[in-house]
Amino acid sequence: MAVSYTTSRRVEFADTDMAGLIHFVTFYRMMESVEHEFFRSMGTSVMSRDENGLRRGWPRLGAECEFHAPAYFEDELSIAVTVEKLGCSSLTLSYEFHRDETRIASGRMKTVCCVVDTGGKLSSIEMPIELRNRLKKMVEPE
Amino acid sequence: MAVSYTTSRRVEFADTDMAGLIHFVTFYRMMESVEHEFFRSMGTSVMSRDENGLRRGWPRLGAECEFHAPAYFEDELSIAVTVEKLGCSSLTLSYEFHRDETRIASGRMKTVCCVVDTGGKLSSIEMPIELRNRLKKMVEPE
Amino acid sequence: MAVSYTTSRRVEFADTDMAGLIHFVTFYRMMESVEHEFFRSMGTSVMSRDENGLRRGWPRLGAECEFHAPAYFEDELSIAVTVEKLGCSSLTLSYEFHRDETRIASGRMKTVCCVVDTGGKLSSIEMPIELRNRLKKMVEPE
Amino acid sequence: MAVSYTTSRRVEFADTDMAGLIHFVTFYRMMESVEHEFFRSMGTSVMSRDENGLRRGWPRLGAECEFHAPAYFEDELSIAVTVEKLGCSSLTLSYEFHRDETRIASGRMKTVCCVVDTGGKLSSIEMPIELRNRLKKMVEPE
Repeated sequence: MAVSYTTSRRVEFADTDMAGLIHFVTFYRMMESVEHEFFRSMGTSVMSRDENGLRRGWPRLGAECEFHAPAYFEDELSIAVTVEKLGCSSLTLSYEFHRDETRIASGRMKTVCCVVDTGGKLSSIEMPIELRNRLKKMVEPE
Repeated sequence: MAVSYTTSRRVEFADTDMAGLIHFVTFYRMMESVEHEFFRSMGTSVMSRDENGLRRGWPRLGAECEFHAPAYFEDELSIAVTVEKLGCSSLTLSYEFHRDETRIASGRMKTVCCVVDTGGKLSSIEMPIELRNRLKKMVEPE
Repeated sequence: MAVSYTTSRRVEFADTDMAGLIHFVTFYRMMESVEHEFFRSMGTSVMSRDENGLRRGWPRLGAECEFHAPAYFEDELSIAVTVEKLGCSSLTLSYEFHRDETRIASGRMKTVCCVVDTGGKLSSIEMPIELRNRLKKMVEPE
Repeated sequence: MAVSYTTSRRVEFADTDMAGLIHFVTFYRMMESVEHEFFRSMGTSVMSRDENGLRRGWPRLGAECEFHAPAYFEDELSIAVTVEKLGCSSLTLSYEFHRDETRIASGRMKTVCCVVDTGGKLSSIEMPIELRNRLKKMVEPE
């Protein structure tokens, strides 16, 4: 059984639309916000520098989400992050959104660790080993 | 071979992020904006009324996108919409984003035609027959 | 001296732009989010019902913000809300953004308490008396 | 009488909120989008390079908007831009939003031409002379 990191986000007024519900792009914004909190919880940031001072980032390869039940203004959603797939440079995290017992949405995003050279070109690189070791424990708990 | 509806959108400054590229949620906003333009091109709107005056909408079941190459501020992206799957009430549209010959992203969104009763409850219904007939021609061109 | 309500917000990645800084519309989103938290702190919500079950809301008459210093991704901003002007139905709140000792931005938003009739028409009404009494204490502290 | 640059923007579904109207931050996004179109109409871009290859940008000092009447999903708004104040490095543009004859909103944004040195520091500079000459004609038409 995989280990999860769990946090919460509130649905803001600007996140709603004229249908009276949360607008669907909010889930992608929330997944990203939670992804970055998850990185901070492991002592790093999605925006960092490698040993040569070059910028390291995590561009996305893809993102998807399924919407199971509507959420409303001022709802407090719990969001559980699980490491779904871990490569040397790539990382797929999955996200489960609940309001109390109601399953609201489920998504996943695939990212890849990259370095940006001084000319602005992105190249995929191996992710920092300490980060990889911490993520590994979430896939295969000891 | 399926028929496409093609339009374009420009990448705005507010659509970029500190990595210097288009932020990924922009693609979902653009897919929705293009979906609604596509509905208008068929003489209807995603927000309409049925014969009893009840509100008819198209809530999403899911949305996904893959990101193939970065896009930048002021890029003009062409977006081609194709009818991927057509049910009696459900509709899956796929979206291809290009900047000139470069394939930038590809996505799909599944929606379902619903009616909203006076209490705010959503129920799936058959989509209007004229709309379905027009969409059908895009799946199986004559 | 006026009493303030103080809270904080973190700058998200989606809040940045290609200039590497927080994008300016973020301040307006944050002012609204803080305004709604401020209402919750007083036991109410910006979206409520009056004694006849009609929807009560707080549409804006105007919003302005001045930007004094840049803010960056993952900055934690403190935001202090002050009641600047209190009418029977109108309310002007002002907002001060700081990162530690650095003054980042200052804004204000004027709203008016309205009721929405069944046809969707907005009319300004007197705000609930308990709310007005609580807001009054912030203008003229005892 | 000042000369205006006029264009239009459509209210998207994502621009609405649960009150059924356009969300107020949309006006700031639209003012920025129109500002950038206005720069393009004068043969330049808000993001350019100076003669030394340094990045030139136009950070904001302030932005304000007053909301006169609600706008709705799929409304086509006309937006007129006027040069309100022109300095050597600073520029204040004002924006008038209409839907047909109805005045929807009016705003203004003050920006300042800056150069970004290699360390990321912003310094205000005189704006390019050709741009200033073109803007000048809009303040004092010949």
